[in-house]
Amino acid sequence: MSSEYQNSNGGTVNVAMFGLGRIGKVHLRSLLDQEDVCIRYLVDVTAAQGDLHHLVRKYRLAETTTVLSTEEADVVYKDPCIDAVFICTPSPFHEEPTQKALQAGKHVFCEKPLALTEQGVRSCYDAARKGGKNLLCAFNRRFDPDLSRIHKMKEDGELGRLRSVTVFSLDKHVPLSYIKTSGGIYVDSCVHMLDYVCWFVGERPLSVYVCGSNTSTYADDYEASGDHDITNIVLTFPSGVLANMMAGREVTYGYDQHFQVLGSKKMAMSKNYRKSEVETWDTNGSLAVDLMESFIERWSSSYTRIVRHFIDVVHGREECMVSAEECMQSLELVKLCEESVRSGKVVSVAPRPLT
Amino acid sequence: MSSEYQNSNGGTVNVAMFGLGRIGKVHLRSLLDQEDVCIRYLVDVTAAQGDLHHLVRKYRLAETTTVLSTEEADVVYKDPCIDAVFICTPSPFHEEPTQKALQAGKHVFCEKPLALTEQGVRSCYDAARKGGKNLLCAFNRRFDPDLSRIHKMKEDGELGRLRSVTVFSLDKHVPLSYIKTSGGIYVDSCVHMLDYVCWFVGERPLSVYVCGSNTSTYADDYEASGDHDITNIVLTFPSGVLANMMAGREVTYGYDQHFQVLGSKKMAMSKNYRKSEVETWDTNGSLAVDLMESFIERWSSSYTRIVRHFIDVVHGREECMVSAEECMQSLELVKLCEESVRSGKVVSVAPRPLT
Amino acid sequence: MSSEYQNSNGGTVNVAMFGLGRIGKVHLRSLLDQEDVCIRYLVDVTAAQGDLHHLVRKYRLAETTTVLSTEEADVVYKDPCIDAVFICTPSPFHEEPTQKALQAGKHVFCEKPLALTEQGVRSCYDAARKGGKNLLCAFNRRFDPDLSRIHKMKEDGELGRLRSVTVFSLDKHVPLSYIKTSGGIYVDSCVHMLDYVCWFVGERPLSVYVCGSNTSTYADDYEASGDHDITNIVLTFPSGVLANMMAGREVTYGYDQHFQVLGSKKMAMSKNYRKSEVETWDTNGSLAVDLMESFIERWSSSYTRIVRHFIDVVHGREECMVSAEECMQSLELVKLCEESVRSGKVVSVAPRPLT
Amino acid sequence: MSSEYQNSNGGTVNVAMFGLGRIGKVHLRSLLDQEDVCIRYLVDVTAAQGDLHHLVRKYRLAETTTVLSTEEADVVYKDPCIDAVFICTPSPFHEEPTQKALQAGKHVFCEKPLALTEQGVRSCYDAARKGGKNLLCAFNRRFDPDLSRIHKMKEDGELGRLRSVTVFSLDKHVPLSYIKTSGGIYVDSCVHMLDYVCWFVGERPLSVYVCGSNTSTYADDYEASGDHDITNIVLTFPSGVLANMMAGREVTYGYDQHFQVLGSKKMAMSKNYRKSEVETWDTNGSLAVDLMESFIERWSSSYTRIVRHFIDVVHGREECMVSAEECMQSLELVKLCEESVRSGKVVSVAPRPLT
Repeated sequence: MSSEYQNSNGGTVNVAMFGLGRIGKVHLRSLLDQEDVCIRYLVDVTAAQGDLHHLVRKYRLAETTTVLSTEEADVVYKDPCIDAVFICTPSPFHEEPTQKALQAGKHVFCEKPLALTEQGVRSCYDAARKGGKNLLCAFNRRFDPDLSRIHKMKEDGELGRLRSVTVFSLDKHVPLSYIKTSGGIYVDSCVHMLDYVCWFVGERPLSVYVCGSNTSTYADDYEASGDHDITNIVLTFPSGVLANMMAGREVTYGYDQHFQVLGSKKMAMSKNYRKSEVETWDTNGSLAVDLMESFIERWSSSYTRIVRHFIDVVHGREECMVSAEECMQSLELVKLCEESVRSGKVVSVAPRPLT
Repeated sequence: MSSEYQNSNGGTVNVAMFGLGRIGKVHLRSLLDQEDVCIRYLVDVTAAQGDLHHLVRKYRLAETTTVLSTEEADVVYKDPCIDAVFICTPSPFHEEPTQKALQAGKHVFCEKPLALTEQGVRSCYDAARKGGKNLLCAFNRRFDPDLSRIHKMKEDGELGRLRSVTVFSLDKHVPLSYIKTSGGIYVDSCVHMLDYVCWFVGERPLSVYVCGSNTSTYADDYEASGDHDITNIVLTFPSGVLANMMAGREVTYGYDQHFQVLGSKKMAMSKNYRKSEVETWDTNGSLAVDLMESFIERWSSSYTRIVRHFIDVVHGREECMVSAEECMQSLELVKLCEESVRSGKVVSVAPRPLT
Repeated sequence: MSSEYQNSNGGTVNVAMFGLGRIGKVHLRSLLDQEDVCIRYLVDVTAAQGDLHHLVRKYRLAETTTVLSTEEADVVYKDPCIDAVFICTPSPFHEEPTQKALQAGKHVFCEKPLALTEQGVRSCYDAARKGGKNLLCAFNRRFDPDLSRIHKMKEDGELGRLRSVTVFSLDKHVPLSYIKTSGGIYVDSCVHMLDYVCWFVGERPLSVYVCGSNTSTYADDYEASGDHDITNIVLTFPSGVLANMMAGREVTYGYDQHFQVLGSKKMAMSKNYRKSEVETWDTNGSLAVDLMESFIERWSSSYTRIVRHFIDVVHGREECMVSAEECMQSLELVKLCEESVRSGKVVSVAPRPLT
Repeated sequence: MSSEYQNSNGGTVNVAMFGLGRIGKVHLRSLLDQEDVCIRYLVDVTAAQGDLHHLVRKYRLAETTTVLSTEEADVVYKDPCIDAVFICTPSPFHEEPTQKALQAGKHVFCEKPLALTEQGVRSCYDAARKGGKNLLCAFNRRFDPDLSRIHKMKEDGELGRLRSVTVFSLDKHVPLSYIKTSGGIYVDSCVHMLDYVCWFVGERPLSVYVCGSNTSTYADDYEASGDHDITNIVLTFPSGVLANMMAGREVTYGYDQHFQVLGSKKMAMSKNYRKSEVETWDTNGSLAVDLMESFIERWSSSYTRIVRHFIDVVHGREECMVSAEECMQSLELVKLCEESVRSGKVVSVAPRPLT
């Protein structure tokens, strides 16, 4: 099977994966379903080596895949047969392997954020540009089939002129340990909405207004962490589109993600998915709701599709759908959100900067 | 205002009402909304005279309306200005006033059944035919806006060839006293579905199969009354349409009335109405259902529309939509249902008889 | 029937109505259903006298009701038997009859706005206070059964701590002639939401942020009228509740009014009502929506309930649910909305003023 | 990795698969997800050998799995390490490998029907009993999470006394070639509903009544094939439960599978799943439905669960949930359905026969 080692132009894409935690396993699964992909390396910290070996057995990868510890990562960068690297490590450990992989001439798929600082993100994109390789920051939600379908309606003119975009993104309980290290709801969660709303509208916003609050059962924990458990973001756009995002945590009834777009001709909405369609009716009139539990389930199709997109980008068949400019802009908007919520004022978005 | 007393050709229709109980009051209200109708008499038993006087005051009818006891009903029949009589008395007291009113040359709107015996019903229609007056048996459900709309789709060919009709008609708790005197679920309740399903299909059925059972919390009461608290009726039609009706009582969650039609091109359904659109979502995932409570609420539009239709029939502007033949056929089907459920066999419907 | 003329303490409430246009007729109908109310006068401009006489005939009011032209309105104020006056005239003609009726010692039910100026509104309330009579500004939506039910859940603690309130209030096409004289979307339409959201939360807001836009098919007309066809209002409250209102006009698919409340324990929503529950399914997968057309249909129950409430207030059985303070505050918030949208800035709400 | 070859008591279950068509691939995928299963053989006709080799490559099975042609099947029966065989070949080729595998001491998972004749099915179960091995006929639908959940509610007494069961099972277009060889809608499709309705009720029916018809766009093809494109099956049960099944083909709008159960305390329903939750609202009021296309998608969870159940049966951890008696009964009911539809009569179900 030497053909698997050939260059990516039309043949197999040889891949290394860094970080095989929850989202890493999701991407591994998607990659295994791609017949033009070969997983060459699984890399993780020493404590996770047993887990990596278990994955090799479970997915029958012994013939093709080498398990490495993080310390041995250089083996990946130096292996000329590797076309692409997936970075699914914890956020503080995104920037280094991204940089090294890009410098070694690999394409990189990296979970957001690419780096903890704006400078770090910019530097990653610089490395990608210099090396002529693709760097995809995994803003997966715009790959969701329902959002994509509504986006296509808009592009095709079916909705008429775009008037407003409304997003609800409400999570269930989040452990305090996570809250303490997440960087706050804006960079951790809202960045996804900021990304896909701007992509959907297709414009750079004019202004940002945010008001946040702590009102959940765990309000005190959020307060103590300097975070918000609920927040409302309003963006205005040059064409007159109004965008409104309600993001929150500690919602009791499920992972509530809905999206509604008003056009001058049509309104379109992407409703919640349920994990069950059982209803029971009795004297109290109650029915079961059974929303999905978390992003892993709700956005599962988007994970498959963004991975497939990245492989096609590596093949040179598609343009990378998440640009450096967009990624920088999302980070910039996160900062403006934080500024608005701190000051209680509307913040203007500067004219489009050079990237 | 002498114009109100003129003959019904284009002018005011002068009306007498017999029986002002629950459904009588519903029809009174509809009639008061018709500007070409004048209520001349309210007639009921002696014990209800106070109630009638109250209605006269409540609706400001003193100037136009006379209150009579049942014993004084002849005043109505002899009054030449009366164009039409509404019979909303209890079932055993339908036939006599219907006959007398028809013989006196009045048009008659009568709640079902026209009489307690098949012979009585036939005799009423004979009287109507002889006198050249209209007799409308109030099968109101086919006047429901949603059923009418689906019927129109079918007539317009939108549904394609009709394939199946499915009806659910489930009532909440019914008092034992009512069960004991209702005549049984087939003549009391199923007759409505038999009427509108045959009207909808537009054919005379070929066969009837019914299985009934007693399985509700009050099963023993129904058993003792020789009645069924749930029953399933299957009709076949010459064109191949299959009709299925599930009727029941003692349902805990509301008045459940839904209707579904499969055509070769489209499926159409008439869903339940709710009395509230409030939903609550929490850990248990429960929501409120809030179906309507009873036929009075669910079919309110149909009552208004059938009354309006009858007035237009009296004016000579519309053909009576419920024919003698249809009314006789519904009674016939009730008998065949009872025969099928008793014998456990499929019963053939005889070729169309003369009426 | 002399009892009808007695004082309102427990007896009949004698009423005069000014203005019998669309909303006037809705209230007339509700009043006619109240057995403790007697309509004594219908008052409107000379051109509408024929219409008033028609109403008298239609509702059999000849015995009790006098038709007057606006010029003869003094007859009403001077009639000692009149307990209450309903003002349903066009907005520029609210203040004068409200003032005169209050000065004559009548209770007043008046459509919003009470007057065209803040000073006028204040002056009306002054007159009410001086005379010891009730003045109800008809903010009807908080009387809607579904909103009331969710409000009760909140008051009973069922929802837990209130976190956010989201309102959608989108109208269908509005004639240009109406737009030109409406005073703008904030005072004409948003005032309803401002009223009921503040009532629902039970607090005076801290800040107002509004962004408006013109993006409908009729955007140019709105632009030329200095109005907005879509607007997004964000209120913050002392307890941390975030309120978000999306109001718009020129929506193609129906009168879209939904309301959603997030509490720390439960989420509750008041969904849209449909005028039909027919659905059709075919190759294209389409179904009918059939939202109600306008506020008259959607809020019909609230009109009945606010009229009944006012009659009970006149009887002295209930406290007036819409206070002077609340009415003044809604007007104040309208002004702040207009200021925010003009300046593009967040506007603070001053500490509660004396009324 | 010699541990994989050990006996199934607690260790790895070694499996051979016969037939890797559409449903075979679904089961292969489920089996690959089970960490205690090893696929040892893939067996199919000569023409499919390339496809089998492709599967070996795609799922990285080269190390563990041997590809065989049907002629070489003896290798499987003779291999002592094989614990269980999956039979997913076309229906005429179920009986022979089932018999041979059972006689060779393997457990068998076989798609329905086990054989084309009742005698054949009985003979398979005899072989299973003699050899002390499990034979699971893949009536997958009762393994559906939603049906299972409602079944559990019933078993736990939550629904109260069971009153009625209503099933809709409507397929989209079926190719004529399939119709001609399917054996007819009763044995091909309705057998699934007959199986799960009897399992759900937990009783042997008393009577069967069926009326079928041909009314779809392809009615003539069905007529020519002696088949029905729509059929309605009514079962009665000793406890009084009424069961009603509407099965059809050639439905335009999607794969419509819903299930509704009325109990004396509650009603429960299992609603349709959609493949998209996008809705669009406009002047025509239309929305997208997007039901799933076919059984493969709708019942995907049930396939996973029945495979897992079978593996646990092989391990000796669970009792086989589909008994010989149930399987024989479903076939018997199919025959009675065909008899009823042919004769137009109600057919009694004989007292429970020995198996």
